[in-house]
Amino acid sequence: MLQSPTKNVVRLILIGFGSVHQHFARILLDKAPLLRRRYARDLLVVGVGDSGGAVYQTEGLDLATLLAHKQAGNSVCTLPHGVAMADALSLARSGDYDLLLEASPVNLNDGEPALGCVRSALARGRSAVLANKAPLVLDYEALHDLAQRNQAKLAFSATVCGGLPVVNVGERDLVGATIHKIEGIFNSTTNYILSRMATGEDYESALAEAQRRGLAETDPSLDVDGWDTANKLVIIANAVLGASTTLADVTVEGISGVGSKQLAGAKANGRRIKLVATAEQQGERYRFAVRPRQVPADSFLGGVVDWQMGIVFHTDIYEEISMKVDERDPTATAAAMLRDVITLTR
Amino acid sequence: MLQSPTKNVVRLILIGFGSVHQHFARILLDKAPLLRRRYARDLLVVGVGDSGGAVYQTEGLDLATLLAHKQAGNSVCTLPHGVAMADALSLARSGDYDLLLEASPVNLNDGEPALGCVRSALARGRSAVLANKAPLVLDYEALHDLAQRNQAKLAFSATVCGGLPVVNVGERDLVGATIHKIEGIFNSTTNYILSRMATGEDYESALAEAQRRGLAETDPSLDVDGWDTANKLVIIANAVLGASTTLADVTVEGISGVGSKQLAGAKANGRRIKLVATAEQQGERYRFAVRPRQVPADSFLGGVVDWQMGIVFHTDIYEEISMKVDERDPTATAAAMLRDVITLTR
Repeated sequence: MLQSPTKNVVRLILIGFGSVHQHFARILLDKAPLLRRRYARDLLVVGVGDSGGAVYQTEGLDLATLLAHKQAGNSVCTLPHGVAMADALSLARSGDYDLLLEASPVNLNDGEPALGCVRSALARGRSAVLANKAPLVLDYEALHDLAQRNQAKLAFSATVCGGLPVVNVGERDLVGATIHKIEGIFNSTTNYILSRMATGEDYESALAEAQRRGLAETDPSLDVDGWDTANKLVIIANAVLGASTTLADVTVEGISGVGSKQLAGAKANGRRIKLVATAEQQGERYRFAVRPRQVPADSFLGGVVDWQMGIVFHTDIYEEISMKVDERDPTATAAAMLRDVITLTR
Repeated sequence: MLQSPTKNVVRLILIGFGSVHQHFARILLDKAPLLRRRYARDLLVVGVGDSGGAVYQTEGLDLATLLAHKQAGNSVCTLPHGVAMADALSLARSGDYDLLLEASPVNLNDGEPALGCVRSALARGRSAVLANKAPLVLDYEALHDLAQRNQAKLAFSATVCGGLPVVNVGERDLVGATIHKIEGIFNSTTNYILSRMATGEDYESALAEAQRRGLAETDPSLDVDGWDTANKLVIIANAVLGASTTLADVTVEGISGVGSKQLAGAKANGRRIKLVATAEQQGERYRFAVRPRQVPADSFLGGVVDWQMGIVFHTDIYEEISMKVDERDPTATAAAMLRDVITLTR
């Protein structure tokens, strides 16, 4: 799969250069010696695209310069070093790279520009690592077919619960299991809002804090209306449950109907209101839903508070497995992309 | 690695035929069609050894007959079909198989018969799947060297927290991380005993229940004196933290000093007493300890109750990841061996 001159150098292009990919670049700056020592890998970012355009440089871009340039409010395409390109898609189509990383904003209408970039990489036999859920939600099976036909791979452990390896555990570790039910809290913005509102804080200031941390989606209605949670459920359904599923199969209700009075009432009864995603087996199929639900405060889901996200797998032979992550900024999501990069090139 | 005539048939030998391997055999009986459909694998048990001797049959043993024979109080070596052998080691040395599975009782003195059987398999280029911790605790590095020299592999996800993929998540998913601290509750027998004693039940009846379920070690002092927990910590230290560690590096204190009065006192203060394993980074090294500790009842570790086991990874780039499993009998430990079998033969 790798096209690089030595197999230890992995040339990456980054589509989108918002919060997640900026954290990814910072991790690479910090961890280059550790990655070399532990995995014998040199990760070289040879191209970056944002909404203003793209830039490519065969020898690799200087990440500190790139970060400073972006933080000064510029598009990556005006970076003084490197070849400017019209857009991210041009970079995906004509750049020379080993892996494409996708973390542009979620667009559930047509998935662009992410979907076109990912398709282009896969068609060229380049593997893709996604933090962006939209391409998978809109086109899961076709992307996997395209990857397989071109001996490329698709990794997306960052799409569900950031650093928590939900997809990996479901795909690789629950071997031989029948999963009767999955319950999860997949969206930290709404979980934080509900946690804060239960203590009397108002909705707007809690949402503003999630935006300040870079944890809210670019379009926050994706969070509060439940669609981000539903996207993650669709990915789990396809990747872990082997159930060909789209958003149309999920009953979705957001948190806009949850008021301070309900939250206080639940609290007085030792309960908490959470935005819970559920996949429940019914015969040969699953029933999918996202909706606010009361859970006991001392249950596992009740203990998934503030910036945490979590999941419970109810299985036959592995009984009940629960996992959660505490994620106060997008570092762990960026780390999950690093996990996929190393795993794909091992 | 596989020596089988078609790569879809995987020939297994089972060393030890107690609770874990009997559950493993039951899973194979139940799941054969699913394993064929989902992973294109036919798992054939061609040999079994217990403390009375061993039996081998090229075409595969009938698992229902084997289970009935064992449950009637017989050694596997008196099974009417198949070739009887003197002991498990003879089977490991001379049987024709692809994978050796080890789940005989933990022996921390010299690791036998497990250690000899595993060494013999690896030396013959056969991979090994372990539920037994002793070989790893006594000889981690040498076994890994032996495996590598012979193009064999060693998998042991069942050794720590049964079905919970603690080692896998630590090894494969926390890519690039620095783990500052690990805290865990790794022994369900003592966790159940402490949970029950906190409600007023006595020590002996709680231990008897763990033995009845097949969850207590054959020698229960391994559980209550903290050595089973320490064994798991040593395995995590070597496999996940990359820290060459033996039992001598772990400060170990069991639960014998924990009385009903202490448990009630903790409870009155909103706390619970748990047998907690800790690996804490100090400079370039880790400090390892197993000891009873008070934790807040509403913390993650406080919520690991009764038959549950769990772990918290405190990391840099993945922040804090917590996982737990609810495991009421050894099925999930047996399932973890199945996970390793499928993973090794993929």
